[in-house]
Order: sequence, then structure tokens, then C-alpha cells
Amino acid sequence: MTEPFFFSRGRGLSVREIAALIDAKPRPGADLDRRIIGIAALDQAAPSDLAFLDKAKYAPQLSISAAGACLTTERYASRAPAGVSVLCVTEPYRAFVEVARALFPEALRPSSLFEAGGVAVGAFVHPSARLENGVTVDPGAVIGPRAEIGTGTMINAGAAIGPNVRIGRHCAIGANVSITNSLIGDRVTVHPGCAIGQDGFGYLMGARGHRKVLQIGRVIIQDDVEIGAGTTIDRGGIRDTVIGEGTKIDNLVQIGHNVTIGRHCIIVSQCGISGSVVIEDRVVLAGQVGLADNVRIGEGAMIGARSGVMSDVPAGEKWFGYPAMRGREFLRSMMTLRHWVGKSDAPESGDDEDAPDDEPSPARGGRRRNR
Amino acid sequence: MTEPFFFSRGRGLSVREIAALIDAKPRPGADLDRRIIGIAALDQAAPSDLAFLDKAKYAPQLSISAAGACLTTERYASRAPAGVSVLCVTEPYRAFVEVARALFPEALRPSSLFEAGGVAVGAFVHPSARLENGVTVDPGAVIGPRAEIGTGTMINAGAAIGPNVRIGRHCAIGANVSITNSLIGDRVTVHPGCAIGQDGFGYLMGARGHRKVLQIGRVIIQDDVEIGAGTTIDRGGIRDTVIGEGTKIDNLVQIGHNVTIGRHCIIVSQCGISGSVVIEDRVVLAGQVGLADNVRIGEGAMIGARSGVMSDVPAGEKWFGYPAMRGREFLRSMMTLRHWVGKSDAPESGDDEDAPDDEPSPARGGRRRNR
Amino acid sequence: MTEPFFFSRGRGLSVREIAALIDAKPRPGADLDRRIIGIAALDQAAPSDLAFLDKAKYAPQLSISAAGACLTTERYASRAPAGVSVLCVTEPYRAFVEVARALFPEALRPSSLFEAGGVAVGAFVHPSARLENGVTVDPGAVIGPRAEIGTGTMINAGAAIGPNVRIGRHCAIGANVSITNSLIGDRVTVHPGCAIGQDGFGYLMGARGHRKVLQIGRVIIQDDVEIGAGTTIDRGGIRDTVIGEGTKIDNLVQIGHNVTIGRHCIIVSQCGISGSVVIEDRVVLAGQVGLADNVRIGEGAMIGARSGVMSDVPAGEKWFGYPAMRGREFLRSMMTLRHWVGKSDAPESGDDEDAPDDEPSPARGGRRRNR
Repeated sequence: MTEPFFFSRGRGLSVREIAALIDAKPRPGADLDRRIIGIAALDQAAPSDLAFLDKAKYAPQLSISAAGACLTTERYASRAPAGVSVLCVTEPYRAFVEVARALFPEALRPSSLFEAGGVAVGAFVHPSARLENGVTVDPGAVIGPRAEIGTGTMINAGAAIGPNVRIGRHCAIGANVSITNSLIGDRVTVHPGCAIGQDGFGYLMGARGHRKVLQIGRVIIQDDVEIGAGTTIDRGGIRDTVIGEGTKIDNLVQIGHNVTIGRHCIIVSQCGISGSVVIEDRVVLAGQVGLADNVRIGEGAMIGARSGVMSDVPAGEKWFGYPAMRGREFLRSMMTLRHWVGKSDAPESGDDEDAPDDEPSPARGGRRRNR
Repeated sequence: MTEPFFFSRGRGLSVREIAALIDAKPRPGADLDRRIIGIAALDQAAPSDLAFLDKAKYAPQLSISAAGACLTTERYASRAPAGVSVLCVTEPYRAFVEVARALFPEALRPSSLFEAGGVAVGAFVHPSARLENGVTVDPGAVIGPRAEIGTGTMINAGAAIGPNVRIGRHCAIGANVSITNSLIGDRVTVHPGCAIGQDGFGYLMGARGHRKVLQIGRVIIQDDVEIGAGTTIDRGGIRDTVIGEGTKIDNLVQIGHNVTIGRHCIIVSQCGISGSVVIEDRVVLAGQVGLADNVRIGEGAMIGARSGVMSDVPAGEKWFGYPAMRGREFLRSMMTLRHWVGKSDAPESGDDEDAPDDEPSPARGGRRRNR
Repeated sequence: MTEPFFFSRGRGLSVREIAALIDAKPRPGADLDRRIIGIAALDQAAPSDLAFLDKAKYAPQLSISAAGACLTTERYASRAPAGVSVLCVTEPYRAFVEVARALFPEALRPSSLFEAGGVAVGAFVHPSARLENGVTVDPGAVIGPRAEIGTGTMINAGAAIGPNVRIGRHCAIGANVSITNSLIGDRVTVHPGCAIGQDGFGYLMGARGHRKVLQIGRVIIQDDVEIGAGTTIDRGGIRDTVIGEGTKIDNLVQIGHNVTIGRHCIIVSQCGISGSVVIEDRVVLAGQVGLADNVRIGEGAMIGARSGVMSDVPAGEKWFGYPAMRGREFLRSMMTLRHWVGKSDAPESGDDEDAPDDEPSPARGGRRRNR
């Protein structure tokens, strides 16, 4: 099969318009009237594409690039072939992102799977739900009693919005999402398959059975939040679960009941945030991090990938490892340990005799090379 | 926007009724006729709310609380302002949970997204499916041929129930769940977005392609099980995958084929349970644990958060770490190692010179403490 | 309730037909005319079932088995009771899998939840979508404008297929899956609840807000790929996200933007693959592995369970641990450390005095408090 593009290439922008948009300085001789309709990596770009270069590592690609235009710094400008219209900027990648946003505005947030306008045939909207003008609802979506949805918001195929839920304006709710017991602000994007607002995981444990702890709180999602595919956010117990303005959450993240997340945080894929955790503003959690319940992560702290945090983290610190500690202590400990184990191993040449046959056993291989 | 509550506040209970319900002893002077219609945390409670106090840490909140009534122990009873009707019990939190259940019975399990009664317009029920009276099916739900569903069970919007599946009575199946090849007992709750009964991950591996191993077993879910949002449970290969009575499973857990889980277990979010694992009764797996295939976890064992279990765990033991071992040996090893690494570092004062500038470099900090 | 089987037992195969199918040598006296209609584990097999034995551990089960037929090696053949028709082969499990595939062809891939033929009532197919003859679409499924779907492909209940998506022939798309911006080959299976083709997680970070990086690439899934339930695959930014032919992916895996995965890889449950990672052919990632962005995993490499890979892995190597390194160095380091910590602890026998009662706590930092 031929391979279509999913985002339409329109009239594009001239190199002159691009230069004006990002305040770039054209290399002498650049063809300012050339039209750019796409974006591409330097090694894949065609004459109608814009590319960028910001690292020495990729400079050789520039010298043979077929790109129509390239954003780069003064340092690399002379490397480009004559056919490339070079635009010089101080931050090529940042400028590239801005041009991309101008060229493909429809890619900025998810759009209707059915290209529906208004409420599609096959959508189930309860008569008591209140939709402002300009709401799009795909087939198979279900909107419950007394739900309220603001203008410009798009509810994708199969999404299920529960009773009394409020969703603000210019939001995009992905396919097969479910949202209950939640209040959602403006310009929020929820990617497909998320589950938001269900019961938190609370029990009074007992040997003969666990007694459910009621959860009557809500989920509050403030403006400009983005939530990745398959992420789950439980509603609060007697408080609310809150996601602060501008926070970005990746795919398959678990957020427990009563969690409070501040503004402009970044939470990477597969993190697990236990109940009643408090995350202050501008925190970054790298991938697969786990936070024990009730810990507090201070403003601007960064937690390294795969860390397990069992205590409060002061503002501005970088923690790492499991149990997580300040700075790179975890990595350093592991490296030092390996060094020691390697050394202590040298005199005891027979201790690997029962290593499994199917293992390359580097320690062993290393010793053999030493002899 | 104003912020609605999602669970209705009805007539509530009088303080006298609450005292009777949990066998509490009112503080002299308590207003037994006061009506309580909500529950709240001590610092957020209004005069119509019930709160509780069970930890010294929060006692100062009691002295300024506006709660209508408060459950606490004799120890803290005198701290409450005169306006608070104090009820003394030995276990305040447990009593609080019981009152909450009486005040908000509709929050005990998920309800219809569409507030449907019976089979809603827009639900697709195969003519050969057998639904008892009193089954609720939301719009967008699909129930396949010969499926059987018991009275009082609610199938939420977009849930898909496959051929021949049996679901017992008084269950709640969340939005956009899919269930195939499964037999489900009574009073089971499945939260939104779960996938239950699909193929397990089995292949005969080969360099030129992997040969699928057929999976013709089932998923058996016994009574009173709760399954969190986005959790996946694969059907058995030639045996069944079984989840025992009263077991509670959190969000985004993966349960492989042929797994047997006993009764009254607790499995916290993002655990991964490999194929053919056996988990006996009353086991607790904390968050993000991984179990290698074919291991057996003995009755009442507890596995600490983020542990990776590669061998059988005897009954009643607490294991931790990766590879997981008894007790806190893992944490102790890590702490001791850091201590040693800190010490060994002392004489080599120059070895951190090339540490990155943006790192607080705890090792360095450690040296300062040594001087 | 009685417990149905979900896969129909038809006429089955005679022992003679089975022997011919897998080129097995019957034990003298085997009843070659016996009909086998099911498969089962040795300890559960009935006279109409085929079982297998390939490990000494299970040989005692053979001597009391009620199986109608059993595949095993010459070594164990004499252990079977006279009533079992024994078929000798060199690889009993591999042969068993082949017979299972012949007995239950309908279990090879997911089938329609509604047993629909063609496009079911209640499916929403956009008039501009192009479906070849022989496509099955369940109720509640949504197929967007200009999507193309090949013959023999089954779209399950609630699946949502976006505009311009192309899906090849003989694919099975599970319930409540969403697919956008993707090109999918032939014989691809996508299990329930997956989200494929949504935006990658890309931002220009800033203290006052994060600027979205546009993602205009696609997801390309080649022939014979299988993708587990709840897995998320983000589309590329300016390149494509690519999953190579014959690769098998388990449940709840996260695959970031611009990732390239080669052919015939195995990716076990809950792995997280960060943006722009390259995985070459025949790589195996065990469960819960994390790969940092931009790393390259060489052909045929194997990464142990729960490893965190922060650098490139050469072809053919086995890595393990966090940060991951060659061979079993990680496990060996941890074991050696525990040995050392155990030793260093031995002389100070009194340091456990203040350990909490409920912790086995091999030796706390209580030492410090004692001084």
C-alpha cells in the first residue's frame, strides 16, 4: 500500500514568512520565496521541507541534505549545500517547533475520529446534559445526565462521560476514555483509554475479608493539563484528587486517591503515585518512578527514572534510586559495588564453577582475558 | 464554575443514630439530635459533617474544627470545642468508614453512567444472551451471544461482554471494559478500561518467527473481587486463570495466563504477575512488584513495593528488594553500601572534580561532613 | 453455575491423524482409532484429551493419568498406563502446540464478540471508508473517514479506527482499541484496550509552562505483529514509530514516539520504551524493563526482567540490572553485597534490640542509636 500522511499539507509558508515568524537571519543567497509545506529530519527532508540542525553530531547530514530550508546556528550555516535556504537562529530546535505549530495547527490536539461536526448520529447524549454550541461528539460516545461541556470541546468515539461531570472549553477527550466524578478545566487533553474518577483503592484489611473504604471525593483537573493514553486517576476519598494547571502526564501513569499535583509538572510514562501524595509545582518525575503514599515532593524537585521514593523530597533536589536519595548517590553506589565485586573476585578463581552454561558470564570472560 | 458533589446528601443520620450504629459513647453534652449529612476531613468539615481523629498529629485540628460531630478515642475527647458532638470509640477510623457506608450507600460500587434502568436504548444485547430481571445496561455496551448476567448487575457504557461469558449478581462492570472467556461470580466490581480473558502471551520462540501457543483456558473470578481500572487479566492456556474470593486488585495490574490467586489478597497498582504464578490466600503485593513465572507466594506473605521476586516465598514471610529476599535485607544492603561508599571516598578528595555542575553531588556533601 | 468451555470441541482428530500430523511414533499397542477432541494438562486430562510430558518432574503424573493420548519422549513412554495412547516425539511440547492449533483453529486469534458476520447493526462506518469484502465489524465499533480495511479482518466491539488509517488483511482488532495515524499490515492482532497512534509526549519545558512539540509522524505496524491488551504506542514526531514484522508485544507496554523495533522481537508485559529508542531484530525484553531514550539495543540482545537500560547494548549480549550491565553482574553484585553485609554484621550481635516486633529486620541502623 502507499503510505499517506495523516496531517494535511496546505499552502505552507515561504522561507521569508518563516524567518519573520521566528526572527531568524537568512544566510546570504537564501531563496526567501521558496514555499515550505512540511517538516522532516535532516536526513529525510525533501525540497519542500524544513529541517533543523543543533548538534555537531548531525552536521555531516546537513552537507548532503536535500531540505528546502534548514534552521541552524551561525556555527553550522556554512555547511549547508547552496540549494538549502539556511535560516540562522540561536535555538534551532525551539524555532523548529514554532514553525511546525504554524504549519500543522490541526496536529496540536486530537481531532474527531469521525470528522464529526456537532453531535454525530450514534452518539448518546442524555437529554439533561448541557452542551454549549460548538461541542463535537463522535459516534459511540456516551454523555450522562446533567453533564456540562464547553464550546470547542471534542468528545471522541466511545468516550463515556458520567453524570454531573463538567468539562471546560476547547478540550479533547480521547476515544474510549471514561470520566466520572470529575471537574475538568479548559484546554485539557485526555488521550485514549484513560479512566478518570473511579473509586480509589481503600480497604480496612481483615483476614476474613477487606472492608471497602468509601470514596466520595472528586477529581479536579485544572486548565491546560495533558493526560497520556491509558492513564488512571482515582477520585479522592474525603478530599479531592487534584492535577494542577499546565501539568503534563504521559501514558500508563497511575494516580491514587487524594493525590495533589501542582502546576507545570512533568510525569513520565508508567509512574505510580500512591494515595495522598503531594507533588508541588514544577516537579519532574522520570519514567517508571514509584512514590510511596503520603510523601511530599518539593517544588522543582526531579526524580530519576525507576526511582522508588519512600520519604519527602525537599524542593529543588534531584533524587535517584531505590530507596531514593539525593543526587547520583544510588548510581555511584552501584558502580562502586561492581568495582569492588570485580576486584574481590580476582583471587578466587574457582568461584564461578557452577555458573549456568548458557550465560556469557562477563566476570568469567573478563578473567580469562586477564590471564 | 461551581463545584458539585457527586454523591447525594440525603436526610442523613442523627448523632444518636450514628452512636447506635457504631456503639459509640457520646461525650457528655453532645447534641444527639443534630443531623449529619456528610463526611469530611477534620480541617474541612462543616457543621453538617462527621469527621474523625485517631492520631496525635492531627489533634490540634480538632481543637479548632467546625465539624458537627467527630469520632475519636477517649484520649482526645476533651480537645474538641463545645460545638462538636464527640463520639468516643476505640477505633475511630474503622467506625468512620462504617458511618460513611451508611450515609452514602450509592457510593459503595460504581453506578450506571447514564442512570439507565434496565437495558438502555443504544445498548446492543444479542438476542441469545440471557439477562435476569434487574440488569442495567448502558448505551454503547455490547453483550454477546449466550452471555448470562445475574440480577442487580450493572454493565456500564461501552463495556463489551463476549459470547458465553457468565457474570453473577450485583456486579458492576465499568465503562469500556472487555470481558471474554470468563466466568464471574457475585458482587464483583470491575473498574473502567480493564481487559479480561484475552490470549495469554505464549510463543514457541524461533529466530525466523515465534509460533503462537494456543490459549483455550478461561478466567474464573470468584465472589466479592474488585479489579482496578486498566488492569489486564489473560485467560489460561490449558488451565484456568483464577482470582479467589474477596481479593482486591488495584489499577494497571498485569495478570498472566494460568495464574492462580487465592482469597482475600491485596494486589497494589502496577504489579506484574507472570504466567503460572500461584499466590496463596491473604497475600499482599505492594505497588509495582514483579513476580517471575511459576513462583509460589505462600499464605499471608507480604512483598514490599517494587520488589522483583524470582523464587518461592514461604508463608507468612515479608520479602523485599530485587532479587527479593527475606525482611529488610535489601534496604539494609543498600544503606550499608552507601555508608561504605561514603567512607571509601574520604581520602580521595579529588575524584569528584568532573562531577556535573548541575548536580548537588551528595558524595561531595558527605566529604564535607567528614572534615 | 456450570462451567462452559469457550472453544468448541468438534469431531477432533484420531490418534492416527495426530501421529501423522506431528510425525510421531506410537507406542506399541496404542489405540490409533481413538478420537481426541480436547487438550489438557496431564493431571487434568480425560480420555478424550491429549496431554504431554517433557520433564522428569511430572513423570509420576503420567503413571496415573487418565488422558486419552500423551505426547512424550521415548524415555518416559513406558511410564504411561496401558489405557493411554502414547505418541513418542523428540519435542513433546512443540508437538503438543501443533496439535492444539489443529484442534482449535478458532482460538488462534480473537473473534467477533458479537459473532457478527459483515458489518453489524450498531457499527458506525463512515461512508467514505473502504472495507473489502469479508470484513467483520461488531456493534459499537467506529470506523472513520477514508479508513481502509482488508478482507478477513475483524474489528471488535467499541474499537475506534481513525481517518485514513489502513489495516491489512486477516487482522483482529480487539474491543475498545483506538487506532489513529497508523498503517497496519496483514495478520496483525491488537488485543483489547490498546491505544495506538496518539501524540507522543514531547514538550519544550519551561518554568511558566511547557510548549507542546508537534507530532506529525505515524505508527507503522508490519505483518504478523501481536500487541497485548492495554498497550500504548505513540505516533512519531517527524519520523515514524515502527514495529517490525513478527514482533510480539505483551500487555501494558508503553512505546514512545519515534521508536523503531525490529523483526521477531519479544517484549514482555509492562516494559517502557522511551522516545527514539532503536531495537534491532530478535531482541528480547523481559518484564518491566525500562529503556532510556535514544538507546540502541543490538540484534539478538536479551534484557533481564526489571532492568533499566541507560546506554547502548551490543548485539547478542545479555544485560541485567539498573543501571543495566552485561551478564549477571547485577545479580552477582547484589548477592555479594548481602554476603558482605551479613559478615560485617556478625560480631555485633546486640544491635537488633530495638527492631520493631513486626519486622524481621536483619540489623537496623540501630547501631548508630546505641552509641
